[in-house]
Amino acid sequence: MSWLPTLITKSPEEGFDLALKLSRMAVKKTQPDDAVRGRLRADYEDSADSLTMASGVVAQNFQTVAAANGCWR
Amino acid sequence: MSWLPTLITKSPEEGFDLALKLSRMAVKKTQPDDAVRGRLRADYEDSADSLTMASGVVAQNFQTVAAANGCWR
Amino acid sequence: MSWLPTLITKSPEEGFDLALKLSRMAVKKTQPDDAVRGRLRADYEDSADSLTMASGVVAQNFQTVAAANGCWR
Amino acid sequence: MSWLPTLITKSPEEGFDLALKLSRMAVKKTQPDDAVRGRLRADYEDSADSLTMASGVVAQNFQTVAAANGCWR
Amino acid sequence: MSWLPTLITKSPEEGFDLALKLSRMAVKKTQPDDAVRGRLRADYEDSADSLTMASGVVAQNFQTVAAANGCWR
Amino acid sequence: MSWLPTLITKSPEEGFDLALKLSRMAVKKTQPDDAVRGRLRADYEDSADSLTMASGVVAQNFQTVAAANGCWR
Repeated sequence: MSWLPTLITKSPEEGFDLALKLSRMAVKKTQPDDAVRGRLRADYEDSADSLTMASGVVAQNFQTVAAANGCWR
Repeated sequence: MSWLPTLITKSPEEGFDLALKLSRMAVKKTQPDDAVRGRLRADYEDSADSLTMASGVVAQNFQTVAAANGCWR
Repeated sequence: MSWLPTLITKSPEEGFDLALKLSRMAVKKTQPDDAVRGRLRADYEDSADSLTMASGVVAQNFQTVAAANGCWR
Repeated sequence: MSWLPTLITKSPEEGFDLALKLSRMAVKKTQPDDAVRGRLRADYEDSADSLTMASGVVAQNFQTVAAANGCWR
Repeated sequence: MSWLPTLITKSPEEGFDLALKLSRMAVKKTQPDDAVRGRLRADYEDSADSLTMASGVVAQNFQTVAAANGCWR
Repeated sequence: MSWLPTLITKSPEEGFDLALKLSRMAVKKTQPDDAVRGRLRADYEDSADSLTMASGVVAQNFQTVAAANGCWR
């Protein structure tokens, strides 16, 4: 089964989780090695700017997911 | 109850507050440890560039929230 | 009264000023201490890259405001 | 007269020039001192990354201007 | 044959792969030397911030691809 | 003749090339000196992060061009 069968979600909260998943999957596709990503996690989860950057990527993806769902109106 | 039941808000100001919440929640989902985030707060709240970056994330999320609300027209 | 009663402005120029206000307000909501923000001002107003970053945030917000106003056509 | 009477331009090229103007005006509104901006110019015009960042701001503003003009179709 | 005959894909997952391709192709067009890109790969695949930046570019391109496909609804 | 007579292109691939052109032209308008830009090229074409940043600008411009062309559907 596809890891991304659809952009449609039941709720805004699930849409936000999908935005997180999209953000992480792009990292995984660029660096597929789980061990390396695990090691790097220690870097960004302890850096304010890294976390802000990550939040920016989620915001971009959330906009896409929200639009796909007609903003759940 | 969901932390994000809807993107609809009563006013632009509440929409802006929701954009702030979305920006912070993405950080929280990436770094769930309250103590670490509290410590990192001292870093970014005293850095002009960190604050500008954070403002950029809010701007992205605000665009999403504004669109969801038909720009409150 | 709300600091953001509406996204509608009379002109593109006023819309640009609102975009500046949105950009600054996100900073203020993240760092509410006026004295700290005043001190940080000395940092970013003397850095080319900081000013470019700030301009990027304004551009994002201006897009939102312009869309809300039907691009003032 | 307003420095920004309209987002409408006669051509895509003029729209691109307007995007440059919007990008610079946001810098000017943040750092109004001509002498300081002149001095900072030496910094960013000799840095590849600074120029790329500036190009990113123009791209964001150009998207706004293009949308306002129905993409000049 | 064109490397980009269409933005239309059969599924969201294929659209995500296309967004990755667009992100990499812009790098390739800027640095066409395969050997240099191969060497640089060691830099960004071992840096949390580099991977987050790359994820941000994919997010931007994915938004474009999703819109082109009517969000696969 | 204008360097940007239209945003309309025959194909997605030509649209991508136009996005590259827009990204470079914004740099050229900010740093018009060919010799300086040539020298700076050595900096960014050998830096993973610089290339990723550049790819991000192309992504933003490609979104504009794609929208202008109705995503070439």
